Amino acid sequence: MPDDRDPPSVLVISAHSGDFVWRAGGAIALSARRGSAVHVLCLSFGERGESPGLWKQPGMTVERVKAARRDEATAAAGILGASIGFLDLGDYPLRVGEAAVERIVAVMRERRPGVLLTHVARDPYNRDHDQAHETTLLARMVAQAHGHDPGTPPLGAAQVFQFEPHQPEVCGFVPDLLLDVTPVFDLKVKAMGCMTAQEHLVRYYTDLGVRRGVQAVRNGAPGTVTHAEAYRRTFPAVGDELR
Amino acid sequence: MPDDRDPPSVLVISAHSGDFVWRAGGAIALSARRGSAVHVLCLSFGERGESPGLWKQPGMTVERVKAARRDEATAAAGILGASIGFLDLGDYPLRVGEAAVERIVAVMRERRPGVLLTHVARDPYNRDHDQAHETTLLARMVAQAHGHDPGTPPLGAAQVFQFEPHQPEVCGFVPDLLLDVTPVFDLKVKAMGCMTAQEHLVRYYTDLGVRRGVQAVRNGAPGTVTHAEAYRRTFPAVGDELR
Amino acid sequence: MPDDRDPPSVLVISAHSGDFVWRAGGAIALSARRGSAVHVLCLSFGERGESPGLWKQPGMTVERVKAARRDEATAAAGILGASIGFLDLGDYPLRVGEAAVERIVAVMRERRPGVLLTHVARDPYNRDHDQAHETTLLARMVAQAHGHDPGTPPLGAAQVFQFEPHQPEVCGFVPDLLLDVTPVFDLKVKAMGCMTAQEHLVRYYTDLGVRRGVQAVRNGAPGTVTHAEAYRRTFPAVGDELR
Amino acid sequence: MPDDRDPPSVLVISAHSGDFVWRAGGAIALSARRGSAVHVLCLSFGERGESPGLWKQPGMTVERVKAARRDEATAAAGILGASIGFLDLGDYPLRVGEAAVERIVAVMRERRPGVLLTHVARDPYNRDHDQAHETTLLARMVAQAHGHDPGTPPLGAAQVFQFEPHQPEVCGFVPDLLLDVTPVFDLKVKAMGCMTAQEHLVRYYTDLGVRRGVQAVRNGAPGTVTHAEAYRRTFPAVGDELR
Amino acid sequence: MPDDRDPPSVLVISAHSGDFVWRAGGAIALSARRGSAVHVLCLSFGERGESPGLWKQPGMTVERVKAARRDEATAAAGILGASIGFLDLGDYPLRVGEAAVERIVAVMRERRPGVLLTHVARDPYNRDHDQAHETTLLARMVAQAHGHDPGTPPLGAAQVFQFEPHQPEVCGFVPDLLLDVTPVFDLKVKAMGCMTAQEHLVRYYTDLGVRRGVQAVRNGAPGTVTHAEAYRRTFPAVGDELR
Amino acid sequence: MPDDRDPPSVLVISAHSGDFVWRAGGAIALSARRGSAVHVLCLSFGERGESPGLWKQPGMTVERVKAARRDEATAAAGILGASIGFLDLGDYPLRVGEAAVERIVAVMRERRPGVLLTHVARDPYNRDHDQAHETTLLARMVAQAHGHDPGTPPLGAAQVFQFEPHQPEVCGFVPDLLLDVTPVFDLKVKAMGCMTAQEHLVRYYTDLGVRRGVQAVRNGAPGTVTHAEAYRRTFPAVGDELR
Repeated sequence: MPDDRDPPSVLVISAHSGDFVWRAGGAIALSARRGSAVHVLCLSFGERGESPGLWKQPGMTVERVKAARRDEATAAAGILGASIGFLDLGDYPLRVGEAAVERIVAVMRERRPGVLLTHVARDPYNRDHDQAHETTLLARMVAQAHGHDPGTPPLGAAQVFQFEPHQPEVCGFVPDLLLDVTPVFDLKVKAMGCMTAQEHLVRYYTDLGVRRGVQAVRNGAPGTVTHAEAYRRTFPAVGDELR
Repeated sequence: MPDDRDPPSVLVISAHSGDFVWRAGGAIALSARRGSAVHVLCLSFGERGESPGLWKQPGMTVERVKAARRDEATAAAGILGASIGFLDLGDYPLRVGEAAVERIVAVMRERRPGVLLTHVARDPYNRDHDQAHETTLLARMVAQAHGHDPGTPPLGAAQVFQFEPHQPEVCGFVPDLLLDVTPVFDLKVKAMGCMTAQEHLVRYYTDLGVRRGVQAVRNGAPGTVTHAEAYRRTFPAVGDELR
Repeated sequence: MPDDRDPPSVLVISAHSGDFVWRAGGAIALSARRGSAVHVLCLSFGERGESPGLWKQPGMTVERVKAARRDEATAAAGILGASIGFLDLGDYPLRVGEAAVERIVAVMRERRPGVLLTHVARDPYNRDHDQAHETTLLARMVAQAHGHDPGTPPLGAAQVFQFEPHQPEVCGFVPDLLLDVTPVFDLKVKAMGCMTAQEHLVRYYTDLGVRRGVQAVRNGAPGTVTHAEAYRRTFPAVGDELR
Repeated sequence: MPDDRDPPSVLVISAHSGDFVWRAGGAIALSARRGSAVHVLCLSFGERGESPGLWKQPGMTVERVKAARRDEATAAAGILGASIGFLDLGDYPLRVGEAAVERIVAVMRERRPGVLLTHVARDPYNRDHDQAHETTLLARMVAQAHGHDPGTPPLGAAQVFQFEPHQPEVCGFVPDLLLDVTPVFDLKVKAMGCMTAQEHLVRYYTDLGVRRGVQAVRNGAPGTVTHAEAYRRTFPAVGDELR
Repeated sequence: MPDDRDPPSVLVISAHSGDFVWRAGGAIALSARRGSAVHVLCLSFGERGESPGLWKQPGMTVERVKAARRDEATAAAGILGASIGFLDLGDYPLRVGEAAVERIVAVMRERRPGVLLTHVARDPYNRDHDQAHETTLLARMVAQAHGHDPGTPPLGAAQVFQFEPHQPEVCGFVPDLLLDVTPVFDLKVKAMGCMTAQEHLVRYYTDLGVRRGVQAVRNGAPGTVTHAEAYRRTFPAVGDELR
Repeated sequence: MPDDRDPPSVLVISAHSGDFVWRAGGAIALSARRGSAVHVLCLSFGERGESPGLWKQPGMTVERVKAARRDEATAAAGILGASIGFLDLGDYPLRVGEAAVERIVAVMRERRPGVLLTHVARDPYNRDHDQAHETTLLARMVAQAHGHDPGTPPLGAAQVFQFEPHQPEVCGFVPDLLLDVTPVFDLKVKAMGCMTAQEHLVRYYTDLGVRRGVQAVRNGAPGTVTHAEAYRRTFPAVGDELR
């Protein structure tokens, strides 16, 4: 029940510069292929906490890690069909101050996403994920305010899809959408291949895609579905069909 | 992402013969209008517990209440575009024995619903609702078994939509689908008008339809939506769109 | 906000013949002292599972255990100011058939309780407690039905207070009422003294009374409160004061 | 079981200057009529996020919105019988720094509320509400500390009542008190009439009052109750009656 | 903190004759290798609902399916080092009457397990699993009663470990023990190989073993752990170490 | 399944300087006796909010309270066998800035705990406890980052045990480990005796130790267990035994 004919703009808020690839690469590629403008906003590069491969190299520095991570993420986004931006707010811990919120709100006002993708509300392993979730809800609220920057129109009621954390049960993640990403999974694999700092995850997330695909079929998807990604909506869906 | 082109068959499991009208009348009319075969299965007539208007008439008997309730529900189903059946299992309390489960399984095998509608899992006010929920899950499981009545093919993975209970918060009901029923709300009103045993509820559920419509808009539906019904899925949805 | 001037009738549904003393003795004595008619309905004698002291006696039989438990419970109820009845449905496991439900409904219709007391919904240690909870909600629903035994008037919307299980956290018991039973705690102690089959519990429940009393003060009760019992309501309270 | 004879002082912590009217107007008027000193503390004016009516006027500025909102809220509080204060901390997002907490603590120490009213803990639509909830618990804790400002006596264990959010199920709001506000609902309607910046809400909250009133009756309130407000306690209630 | 030196007896309550292999094969083999007497009690053969491979063979009958399933399960149990029994209570749906409970209680009294393994409390896909869980708790309670069959000593407080359901998040399964089954995973694979009626699951559960093994390492297990099974305790663990 | 032979280092993060004694004194003494290096890090002295006994003395100042609390805590830690440090971050409210997090991370990197002990995630009575919990998870995450202070090796996956809050049910505390502290309870009593600022708690926590001991036995501990402490793990346990 989209309120206009064009496919909705999609905005992905990623705590670290790799998260969007592993957790939402399929959704991004799928949306882009259908004509949505998809933008990824990386709050940090994951330079300290999510680049073990790079830190094992001798003489590594934070700046070199950041540069490598930026390159990798840019390449991956390109493969998936998305544009990308980096706020460089620092990781482990990620701290989002007022200025950063303002910048994110500005991106929301400009891009006018109908769909937001981000992390779960509570991940006991990784507080940066919680921070990204909270930041997304906060910025969404500000972007909806009539009195914020009255020169630009308020954001509408964009749904916030939470993508799957690494240990879903411990994070209280109960999927309510198994998204068929079969037609674009090759792109996701290719994009994952860019992430040399975390290459041990490629196999893991390829297997996860298959497993969620099997679950999709068990939950009613046609047998041609082979790969899926799991999501949880933050707000009730609206629609005009029982599906 | 329906696995075939025809609109899915819909089966509604209603604890009492009025529940389907108040709680799912819009979804039924909407599905029927789109070409789905919709069938309502009333486990009881609500003859003892949900017919206060009739019991206030002098000389009322259980058999007369049942007959009146059957007539009302049949008329309402007709207006909504659904066929209807009655199992007459008794209400307050509803008790569903093995034979009744077998009959419901047979209906599922015959009608092959892609969508099931029923009550929530836990309603502390009304244990018949719990019983209907449990019965739906149990019969669905049996209907899916390859070894049950091998002459008929197993049921697929039909989604089970839970409709809204009378006091949603106390029943732990958190809607995950606000269904736009604007185009058919006039039919729901007309169908509700048939239920003379509970006419005090017509106003209540008309107001609820408006309220859920307002919420749908607040959650992203277009402004033309004026009436909605709230549902909760039991299983993850499957789909190929972020919506 | 009682709807009449008289103190409400109270009905206690106890899975075993000792439960009402340990868990609700204070509430019973308090209500009785204020003029409420309090009736305790014991679904079983707890003859198999809750009479370890008796079973250690040589030559013990089920019938002798039942008789002893009946005597103890009757004495305890008398001290607390309540009448008592026994359904003798068996324990470990307690099984409540249709006839038993009918009898409980008849008691509800006759006594017209404004307040019901029973066990929690889910106690993984003791399924008889779950059964008593479910039976209470089921019988309450039937007793409210206009079409059940039309010669007697339907029951009103009695609140169901759940009393504290033995291991509250594991049973998901979160108290929402700490009831000051200071003025009657001596009666509870005396009543507990009747329960020779479980005398190891007297100390435990005396200490619990003190502990819940301390908590009551920490939650705003006056410092004169020294003993309390914890309860959880099943339905929202209604009232005309913020308290 | 109040620990003194006088009606308790009531303090309302409102994220935006309109919230207290829509969500707690009845409780405020009821308490004031019974002799409680009721004070409303508005953390912000809701100038950016909750004044769409004002922002549609040409040439509107934040300062003019604030002034209008202050006037409206002051008028509404007067009608309800409460005094009011404004902290002007900004909205969308509301940010509560250390100085603001100190001021709120000082108000608590001075007014010595027995009852606090505020928002729910988690509202995914509106993080300012979460912030107000957290601030209330934080300030309450500080106000209770013996070592904070030893010249003034510590606050007692005031109950924190959470009022109903706009979309209760999505916020996990399960009411445990349906407060009869029938005798003062005319005052609430009058107070709501002051809020011209959000006049679309008057109808909504009038209907909600009726609906909660109906629910109160269904949960045991006398039939004379026609309007109610829903609340959830943060801590266990203490009392000496089963109600 | 075992209360005796011998390894505890283990009893597995399996709804269908295949469940224990897929979900607990590692735990069984591990316990058996350490000297525990492990017994598997299959409530049904899963003859109707969990034998799709067999039903595809022409001319298949329920009796032949049962016989094949019995053979497979017996072989698998033998490989894992466990004895096995079959109650043949029927599946889809599984119905556990009083006589069956008595038989299970007798097994518990005889074998005196210190550890029980069974299904989760609520699996919306498969009500037989719920039934097995409930039956385990019920039988455990009866087996603990001093007055049940006084000639045999009561069962102690055996822990009930819930094994992992097929779609864990939807069943609310949050693991609290990741059990290292690395040393016996070859036996599990071999045992899974016996289950020709469900051979599509071998790959699935092999992958799951690897995935849970990876998670174990991420949660602190030594890097030599390669395969694990996930469990959830029903009751608090007792121990004398922080682990 | 410890990954090395030595007993793990233990780090306790205590919001106030008394918490570790009341809530984890037994675990500390037990670990120390077994050879673990145990260190307690007090984020504040609890000087304002948890020293009522001291504030009742005339002429008391914050500095004198802090000094007294430091002495008491140091003595108690010594009795329990632990070293202790104080960050003096202030209490009621406790505020943990970036520098403090860095210091805690440094302690973690240096001491390399295999076990962390801290408060629950959500205590509505005491937000300092929430802050300590959050700080522990945050610092643990940073300490695990490969890119944080590359000169020191990252922390492993230390389990976080939450100790029991004062009103466990209201804080949603469900214990999953009842730790036998019988052999060291005399030391805990002695350590509690040092805390003159809160001496009213000695009786309370002695009784709690007995009560949790009784529960441990009821959950399967040997009858020789007389005292226990309750804990909840934040992450799944890993192990190679079903216990």
